[in-house]
Amino acid sequence: MNVAIYDTTLRDGCQAYGFSLTVDDKLRVAERLDELGFAYVEGGWPGSNPRDEEFFARAKHLPWRTSRLAAFGSTRKPYTAAAADANLRILLDAEAPVATIVGKSSAEQVRVVLGIPLEENLAMISDSVAFLKAAGREVMFDAEHFFDGYADDPAYALACLQAAADAGADWVVLCDTNGGSLPSAIAGACAQVARTVSTRFAIHTHNDAELAVANSLAAIEAGAQQVQGTINGYGERVGNANLCSIIPNLQLKLGHSCLPPESIVRLTELSRYVSEVGNAPHSLKLPYVGTEAFSHKAGMHVNAVMKGAQTYEHVAPESVGNERHVLVSDLSGRSNIQHKLEELGLALSPEATLKLLQEIKQREHNGTIYEDADASFELLVLRTAGTHTPQFHLQSYSVTTVHRARSDGSEATVKVRVGKDRSLAAAEGVGPVHALDAALRKALIEFFPGIARVRLVDYKVRVVDNESGTSARVRVWIQATDGHRTWNTVGASPNIVSASATALVDSLEYSLLAAEGGHTARQLTG
Amino acid sequence: MNVAIYDTTLRDGCQAYGFSLTVDDKLRVAERLDELGFAYVEGGWPGSNPRDEEFFARAKHLPWRTSRLAAFGSTRKPYTAAAADANLRILLDAEAPVATIVGKSSAEQVRVVLGIPLEENLAMISDSVAFLKAAGREVMFDAEHFFDGYADDPAYALACLQAAADAGADWVVLCDTNGGSLPSAIAGACAQVARTVSTRFAIHTHNDAELAVANSLAAIEAGAQQVQGTINGYGERVGNANLCSIIPNLQLKLGHSCLPPESIVRLTELSRYVSEVGNAPHSLKLPYVGTEAFSHKAGMHVNAVMKGAQTYEHVAPESVGNERHVLVSDLSGRSNIQHKLEELGLALSPEATLKLLQEIKQREHNGTIYEDADASFELLVLRTAGTHTPQFHLQSYSVTTVHRARSDGSEATVKVRVGKDRSLAAAEGVGPVHALDAALRKALIEFFPGIARVRLVDYKVRVVDNESGTSARVRVWIQATDGHRTWNTVGASPNIVSASATALVDSLEYSLLAAEGGHTARQLTG
Repeated sequence: MNVAIYDTTLRDGCQAYGFSLTVDDKLRVAERLDELGFAYVEGGWPGSNPRDEEFFARAKHLPWRTSRLAAFGSTRKPYTAAAADANLRILLDAEAPVATIVGKSSAEQVRVVLGIPLEENLAMISDSVAFLKAAGREVMFDAEHFFDGYADDPAYALACLQAAADAGADWVVLCDTNGGSLPSAIAGACAQVARTVSTRFAIHTHNDAELAVANSLAAIEAGAQQVQGTINGYGERVGNANLCSIIPNLQLKLGHSCLPPESIVRLTELSRYVSEVGNAPHSLKLPYVGTEAFSHKAGMHVNAVMKGAQTYEHVAPESVGNERHVLVSDLSGRSNIQHKLEELGLALSPEATLKLLQEIKQREHNGTIYEDADASFELLVLRTAGTHTPQFHLQSYSVTTVHRARSDGSEATVKVRVGKDRSLAAAEGVGPVHALDAALRKALIEFFPGIARVRLVDYKVRVVDNESGTSARVRVWIQATDGHRTWNTVGASPNIVSASATALVDSLEYSLLAAEGGHTARQLTG
Repeated sequence: MNVAIYDTTLRDGCQAYGFSLTVDDKLRVAERLDELGFAYVEGGWPGSNPRDEEFFARAKHLPWRTSRLAAFGSTRKPYTAAAADANLRILLDAEAPVATIVGKSSAEQVRVVLGIPLEENLAMISDSVAFLKAAGREVMFDAEHFFDGYADDPAYALACLQAAADAGADWVVLCDTNGGSLPSAIAGACAQVARTVSTRFAIHTHNDAELAVANSLAAIEAGAQQVQGTINGYGERVGNANLCSIIPNLQLKLGHSCLPPESIVRLTELSRYVSEVGNAPHSLKLPYVGTEAFSHKAGMHVNAVMKGAQTYEHVAPESVGNERHVLVSDLSGRSNIQHKLEELGLALSPEATLKLLQEIKQREHNGTIYEDADASFELLVLRTAGTHTPQFHLQSYSVTTVHRARSDGSEATVKVRVGKDRSLAAAEGVGPVHALDAALRKALIEFFPGIARVRLVDYKVRVVDNESGTSARVRVWIQATDGHRTWNTVGASPNIVSASATALVDSLEYSLLAAEGGHTARQLTG
């Protein structure tokens, strides 16, 4: 069956804390969704803010190829003619081919929130749909609180849908607005809608009970032909239904058709792209598209995955454009290292592999973990193979932190050697690691101007052997980017400044290696 | 219906990357789960690593009140007598009342991974269960890959369960090991198990298709009487079934009984506690227990929430111990603070409570979290009440870290004031925080000889705002003991040395308060 995918990342997704899109960002995401073949792209609520109005003014000039653009609004005000309703007028002015209008479908909501007779609400739905249809729009009626309304007063909830259908709505959208319905309730209500309402219906869920994906599937199994959701599940509270899980569930597991086959293999790329554009972290734990979705750690599992991939992989990682990651850890052994080398496109002799394995074990014992630090791992491989000459040496450094009368600050001096040259530099920072980072860059930039482009984007500290109190060993993990590529490094020591220095040096050394073209850093955005 | 909750945070949860627990941590979490009334607490896999063996050696001395402790292992090796199997022996040596053993229930897995006849696998299950039952254990047979096995060869999958049941197993556990099953498949297989297998069954799911919660509910609806999962869904790949969503779904929405009513209102606290102890970020987006689970941003919604809370809240936030967050005038927290004060046996005037609340909000904004730092919280209360005069002041310090030719070390000097006296001291350490700690003690010991007994037993560092690279804000958490009592303190700053100094000063100040008898430190270990 064809299931129409309706993306509301640009409207409902932007209700999320920590996820925001400029008009330019929205246009870029819209283009990408169109390129991948999403049936509908909801661009915003033109009546609600100037940004969304500007979006629609510009979006109509995009070369739409596969998606239909939807503008969101609401049914007319009580006791107002549709033609005289300012919000419906603004909706038409957006000039989007699809108009999605939200309205009440719960009798209690009509009474409590609107405080109007139930009949007036039916008239608001009917008039508004008819008005937009007369203007040539594809019209969707978004039935807010449908499932709660259906549970309280099924006849009225169904009457609201039928009012929209009778007025010519192309779709009715069943919303689980507060995200609290269970799949069994969704399935029951949808089956009843399929039997009694004379138009196609869509499902729109939220994840408050951690059931948004299951509720969407339950609706499709009960006859819904359209799913609404957002990329990565962005949305207010705990989020909307996550299209990056729903699409592969429907297409790869249930055999429905949502996106063209050449698009579904780009789902991981899309997921990362949207999080990049929205300046939101890309959760490692996202099903299907997260970095850890196909990662394997425990030795037993890794062996089993080698024997038959589907043992611990519910779908092939490449079917959604993701990849298998073998986490190098002390539970693992030789076969893991071998796999990791292949993944990075590196080759070592059996003797060098053994030496590498011993080196890794020693370092893991000292707290260094290469699980998520491919750049440090690659440098270790190159050093072990003896084929790599570092472009600089950090010879010495000193970092001082001073606290006096509520003012804190750190200063660092470093000495580096580059070939036969030496360079000394000093710098300040908000803390010792920040100061060291600044001094190191200052000392190196005259030799390697390219490191000006290297930016540290993430920094983590973990105490490795908690029990030793303040003399405990710490592990520092750093993520850096040059704007195109992103790489991770690691360092461990009982001294946090030393651990950070190791990870910083690896990070800068790797950036120089990358500049030479010998790197394997993965391309994160297209 | 009673649904038994089986927590596997201490085993399967620890497979998660970025979530790790020391033996002490595990004991603390186990005590908390027991306190809240979890039916089963799985402590680890004693055969797999020394840490888990130590855990069981110590866990048997905990004052278990409500939970039964489970040790995890596997069925005997092929063609080995159960009594001669080293792993079953280790499992008995753990002396836990419950033994959970994993085995194959998929014919294909038996052929491909084990490479043995199907009958030998049945004998492995049967012999192992019988052996553990004979030793007096409550036995659970963990049927790995059950749903995939059932889809391929239902008769064999059921035969594996029946072999366990015939040998006396108290439970069979149906595992969706690769997390890829859909609710409809889970429901169908469970219904068949309910009809044909003569023992109770449990459900164990993973979240790879974002369906772990729904799959758990589907199994319960089809007759399962036990759910296995982890706090916050910690687990390998994208995670295990999240008990913090499953428990309220079952108890608040479906009317089943999982935890005592007085425990379910502590679910949010438990969720945050486990993430603090495991040094993992507490996701804002967690359903029910996340900080944003009941947050309201859109103006329309906030009004509606004011008119009728259930409009955008699927359950009352306080039913799981969470609170509503409204962006404009955030009035939350007050009842929590009140609860916390009562818990610590402290009283404040309404004005002082308001002042404290504002102070806490400001500090939380700067990265300080009091969730698991009661000593810092108590000091803050005393300072806010104006009834506390600190016994010493850290006036200034300077810490220098020097690296030269592979040798690293740190030196600190501190200046403290005690009444009208001053004291200067200097000390070395393996890192800057260690040196500062040593110097501070040296400066104070002549005034307070008792601090010689204070020992720091745990130290954790967390980066609070990852995105700022090496200038990111860090939170430091310290646990100290005087041999009788244990207390925790916290500090936050963009400078790791400052954050550590705050937590160190709080820790020593609290030890002096404790010596005066005014403290409320809880006895953490027996």
